[in-house]
Amino acid sequence: MKTINTRRTIRKYSDKEVSDELLDRLLTEAARTQTMGNLQLYSVVVTRSMEGKERLAPAHFNQPMVTGAPVVLTICADYNRTSTWCRNRKAEPGYDNFLSFVNAATDALLYTQTFCNLAEEEGLGLCYLGTTVYMPQMIIDALNLPKLVMPVATITLGWPDEQPVLTDRLPTASFVHYETYHDYTPEDINLHYAAKEALEENRRFCEINNKETLAQIFTDIRYTKKDNEAMSEGMMEALKKQGFL
Amino acid sequence: MKTINTRRTIRKYSDKEVSDELLDRLLTEAARTQTMGNLQLYSVVVTRSMEGKERLAPAHFNQPMVTGAPVVLTICADYNRTSTWCRNRKAEPGYDNFLSFVNAATDALLYTQTFCNLAEEEGLGLCYLGTTVYMPQMIIDALNLPKLVMPVATITLGWPDEQPVLTDRLPTASFVHYETYHDYTPEDINLHYAAKEALEENRRFCEINNKETLAQIFTDIRYTKKDNEAMSEGMMEALKKQGFL
Repeated sequence: MKTINTRRTIRKYSDKEVSDELLDRLLTEAARTQTMGNLQLYSVVVTRSMEGKERLAPAHFNQPMVTGAPVVLTICADYNRTSTWCRNRKAEPGYDNFLSFVNAATDALLYTQTFCNLAEEEGLGLCYLGTTVYMPQMIIDALNLPKLVMPVATITLGWPDEQPVLTDRLPTASFVHYETYHDYTPEDINLHYAAKEALEENRRFCEINNKETLAQIFTDIRYTKKDNEAMSEGMMEALKKQGFL
Repeated sequence: MKTINTRRTIRKYSDKEVSDELLDRLLTEAARTQTMGNLQLYSVVVTRSMEGKERLAPAHFNQPMVTGAPVVLTICADYNRTSTWCRNRKAEPGYDNFLSFVNAATDALLYTQTFCNLAEEEGLGLCYLGTTVYMPQMIIDALNLPKLVMPVATITLGWPDEQPVLTDRLPTASFVHYETYHDYTPEDINLHYAAKEALEENRRFCEINNKETLAQIFTDIRYTKKDNEAMSEGMMEALKKQGFL
């Protein structure tokens, strides 16, 4: 995993195909990731057809990676397969509840990240679409997901056709605590965010958007309270409809 | 990541120390993992003291790995640091809602899995404790977690002092779907679970527990409806108390 220190999110892909063999190997190897009771509470929907990508695109705000990537993977928290297994084996499943969603989502996300690590080590480029949990019902409909299956992650995948600059990270001391959590003083915040705020691109970003601080870009434009509250409701409704609440 | 195909969960650790330098490097490298808006919505609490481990142990059903490991990491979904940054920068954060918990938990879990992959590649052994979401309030209290911080994963970490057998996995075809989700027929279930059910250790497991099927071990003993429902409530209460609901 020497690739970890130079990894970038890749949004533009070359025409080179991602072979079925390679994809299958990566999907298989990623499954070595630990899961709850070794139940593997996830499933992956592979979308290669343009028709399928076009059905998914609106749920991801029509970001061009969705139709532009040779492969789109939608990773789902899945208690349907396990529950079906139980019912077929004289066992009564009790997984239609919130904790079971959390358990299955955890399995699905850990699986997803091992897949990402493996794919990037192979030289593939990918973009993780956080939009998956914004309007999950659209994805549920597009992929025909039954009860107890919830989409939690989407990966667009292909061979890189760009090499963006390496993005910044907060200093490790900003997110690591020893023994107990030590809450942040204004001085801590200044220290931890100084480098990020000083970045030329972030200063330009503030200028273009007419904002005094970088933080305002997040609170006023990118991730607003209003949007978050509306999408929280949509997520809750989808969880209910899928039988997890 | 050649280690992926031979990885095992490690619950017994040698006396060899995990150095601060190595731990810090792994915690830093794992942070190359993509996060929402590059906000890194997570934090890690490192527990090395016996006192700290003993405070955490009950939340993990006193499994011996917690006090037996040289290092315990509790990884948290964290919107506190980002919200504090916002408030200190004339920006009004709107992250006290369910979607924001999902976003931060996602960041935290992806970070966790890259950490696991890096640590295992280094030769370290680890055990992922799913118990973290069972009684989160106990962990919140033990680690003094403020509002908008929720524990989502725990890793016990050390140099391996055992080499357990490789555990089984379901066939890849059981969890990969093409274009849309194809629900499982009884024949599919038989096909996908045949190898798991035929394993000598699983047959013995049924015998010891006086169960007719392996699935009943899960529904009747390991992950019961009653426990799941009680823990769903505890999780919801903790989310409310931490300000995410």
